Amino acid sequence: MARRYTRVITTPAASRIPRDSSRPFVSLLSDWGLRDPSPAICHGVVLGIAPEALIVDISHEVDKFKVRHGALLLWCALPFLPIGAHMAVVDPGVGTRRRPIAIATARGDYLVGPDNGLLLPAAEKLGGIARCHVIENSQYRLPVVSSTFHGRDLFAPAAAHLALGVPLEQLGPALDPAELEDLDWPAIDVGDGRLETAVIYCDTFGNAKLAGLAADLEEALGRLEDGQPLDVQIGSRGRPTELRWATTFGSVGVGENLVYEDSYGRLCIAQNQGDAARSLRLSDGTRVTISLQASE
Amino acid sequence: MARRYTRVITTPAASRIPRDSSRPFVSLLSDWGLRDPSPAICHGVVLGIAPEALIVDISHEVDKFKVRHGALLLWCALPFLPIGAHMAVVDPGVGTRRRPIAIATARGDYLVGPDNGLLLPAAEKLGGIARCHVIENSQYRLPVVSSTFHGRDLFAPAAAHLALGVPLEQLGPALDPAELEDLDWPAIDVGDGRLETAVIYCDTFGNAKLAGLAADLEEALGRLEDGQPLDVQIGSRGRPTELRWATTFGSVGVGENLVYEDSYGRLCIAQNQGDAARSLRLSDGTRVTISLQASE
Amino acid sequence: MARRYTRVITTPAASRIPRDSSRPFVSLLSDWGLRDPSPAICHGVVLGIAPEALIVDISHEVDKFKVRHGALLLWCALPFLPIGAHMAVVDPGVGTRRRPIAIATARGDYLVGPDNGLLLPAAEKLGGIARCHVIENSQYRLPVVSSTFHGRDLFAPAAAHLALGVPLEQLGPALDPAELEDLDWPAIDVGDGRLETAVIYCDTFGNAKLAGLAADLEEALGRLEDGQPLDVQIGSRGRPTELRWATTFGSVGVGENLVYEDSYGRLCIAQNQGDAARSLRLSDGTRVTISLQASE
Repeated sequence: MARRYTRVITTPAASRIPRDSSRPFVSLLSDWGLRDPSPAICHGVVLGIAPEALIVDISHEVDKFKVRHGALLLWCALPFLPIGAHMAVVDPGVGTRRRPIAIATARGDYLVGPDNGLLLPAAEKLGGIARCHVIENSQYRLPVVSSTFHGRDLFAPAAAHLALGVPLEQLGPALDPAELEDLDWPAIDVGDGRLETAVIYCDTFGNAKLAGLAADLEEALGRLEDGQPLDVQIGSRGRPTELRWATTFGSVGVGENLVYEDSYGRLCIAQNQGDAARSLRLSDGTRVTISLQASE
Repeated sequence: MARRYTRVITTPAASRIPRDSSRPFVSLLSDWGLRDPSPAICHGVVLGIAPEALIVDISHEVDKFKVRHGALLLWCALPFLPIGAHMAVVDPGVGTRRRPIAIATARGDYLVGPDNGLLLPAAEKLGGIARCHVIENSQYRLPVVSSTFHGRDLFAPAAAHLALGVPLEQLGPALDPAELEDLDWPAIDVGDGRLETAVIYCDTFGNAKLAGLAADLEEALGRLEDGQPLDVQIGSRGRPTELRWATTFGSVGVGENLVYEDSYGRLCIAQNQGDAARSLRLSDGTRVTISLQASE
Repeated sequence: MARRYTRVITTPAASRIPRDSSRPFVSLLSDWGLRDPSPAICHGVVLGIAPEALIVDISHEVDKFKVRHGALLLWCALPFLPIGAHMAVVDPGVGTRRRPIAIATARGDYLVGPDNGLLLPAAEKLGGIARCHVIENSQYRLPVVSSTFHGRDLFAPAAAHLALGVPLEQLGPALDPAELEDLDWPAIDVGDGRLETAVIYCDTFGNAKLAGLAADLEEALGRLEDGQPLDVQIGSRGRPTELRWATTFGSVGVGENLVYEDSYGRLCIAQNQGDAARSLRLSDGTRVTISLQASE
């Protein structure tokens, strides 16, 4: 089974959760870095349009141009944030013809950013895409739009206006969700007794998150016991490493590696109080195949 | 004299400062890193419970698993923050049997985090521990508690509920403060004419903070003059380095090292406009012995 | 033409934009780093004085002691932030005789920080200096002022009081703006067919911002076409590099370098989806001379 983030379409708007209109909520995610003033400038732009807005920064330290990382972090974070307008900008194509878009989710959020797949996993997680529009109406932008800082000039204003209650269709023409650019996401192959997947993100602890979910592993291998040893093939060469399936870090010794279901339901390879990405040479894209041990 | 952070008990609750109940205040500290979405997710969780909460991030860049660093930063910060609920998570034992706790301080704050010593110096600084309870009541957690992200599922909800006014005893059974886990803190030996202590933290400037306080040095050496040279033995080998006691960086030349009382009353070794940790090879745990110069 | 940031004086106070007094606005910028608790402590100090204040962090990751970087980031950010009190602290001279100052701008903001040039470009950008006072009155400081953390003890309180509406002249004696310390800023020489300038900042993408503005380049070379090749002499040795003038990153191939007008009107050397600072060995202070190609 290979899956891609594509054409995640339309849950009925009837399932929309009413937003508490007392205070507009805006979240921001980008790869701009916290040393530069870009995130603060977007706070300023939002506050200039929606002075009562409550703004939360999800991350501005996404690795440069790593659309997939940004997509994953949004997917992790948004279910725990208030319903609101969420601006995400990881945008190697800024200034080219890629479309600026705004998506309404079934939960009632708006996702605002470039049409490069960044918003799709989060949209699916929030119930699916209810509607999608191109951001085109100059009334909801800053007066001058630069060719290199669309976060400030175009996306942050759109998010602020949406958070204030401007109807999505005011921003520009509707877009068929089937026409959205897909996200580059590694295939997940659930076989009989083996799961083939890949690392998509190494967090700041060095825990390596996989494209596959814990549910995928259970489908492939059946139900696992806490502490059960697994064969884990890392990359395409060499011999499998034995890693234990564990429910938490403390189930294995300090410095020992484990495979576990992270707190978002995702498969993850970690080292108890250590850095698995470094010790096992895992990085974004590394292929990982997990199987039951031959001897079992 | 060797001291540890232990059994810092009970200042009468009568000294409690009334909290301004108009807006619940929550602060957050962790070693999760700002690249990952974990801090933002805790903002979301707090806002889901206490939509009017004002949240301040103390730091999420504490070195991984360095409980002592987190404890020091809390100790520095909390006296300057509003009275509120302060969540701190540096938690190498997440998912093991270490207890999740909430402490009421004499000042009227709540400190929420793992029982590993992290909260003790700040509790002492805020007047001492008035009461302590284990966080156990599932009513004040998220519906599902993961085994690896207690900050999100357990500590942030507890902090939000406490900030809203939920009584501490609702969270779970009382715990005798004498039974709290101690913090690993280097001994401070105040001798006659010498102070033996250790580096506990090097800040982002490379200033090395010592376990000993300026008051300890004065007790050991008597009152010092601005500019007075001292013998400073760094580590256990080699000869002492001459460092000058100074009231501020500008009292010595650019690039010159100094010993001073930092703005929290703590002894600190620094270099004027430079990085003392690097130039003097100071790091967490380095033993430092300060004495009057033999020739004096 | 050589220019420096100096004596940027007095636009009539009549042009002052009224502040929305409903919620005091404070921004913070420093070189303290986000690992340390100093930024959070300043939030706490501001909230202690102005509990309703809205606080935005511009950056706390300015390179240590780089006054010019801080000055540039303020210049970029403040036009997009609400009118308010803006504290900026990049202060190698803390604890020496350098003056703590507060500037009222023509736009109606207050800029608070050390008198070392840090505040001047932003003041000019916000319409010029209307008035300037030394911060001296102990009533608007914390009760004890340390010799090493003036951000906490002196600048944050001053910013909070100004944001609340305390008149500037209450803080201390007036200072003639002509007596303010100048900022060290590289000369810009606009010649006939060539512009000599220097790198002042490399952002987190590796884009190198120059002291010169796009308007300076147009004055020197005339109006440029998108894609036009230019000779760019980097440093004082070696041969010029051919770089294309482009309106945005996507105008050149991935990995190709370009010269463009950034979203603030400033000249910038970048690499499309790459790090120009590294590939072209550009750093703060590197001299850059841009001219039309000889063959043209």
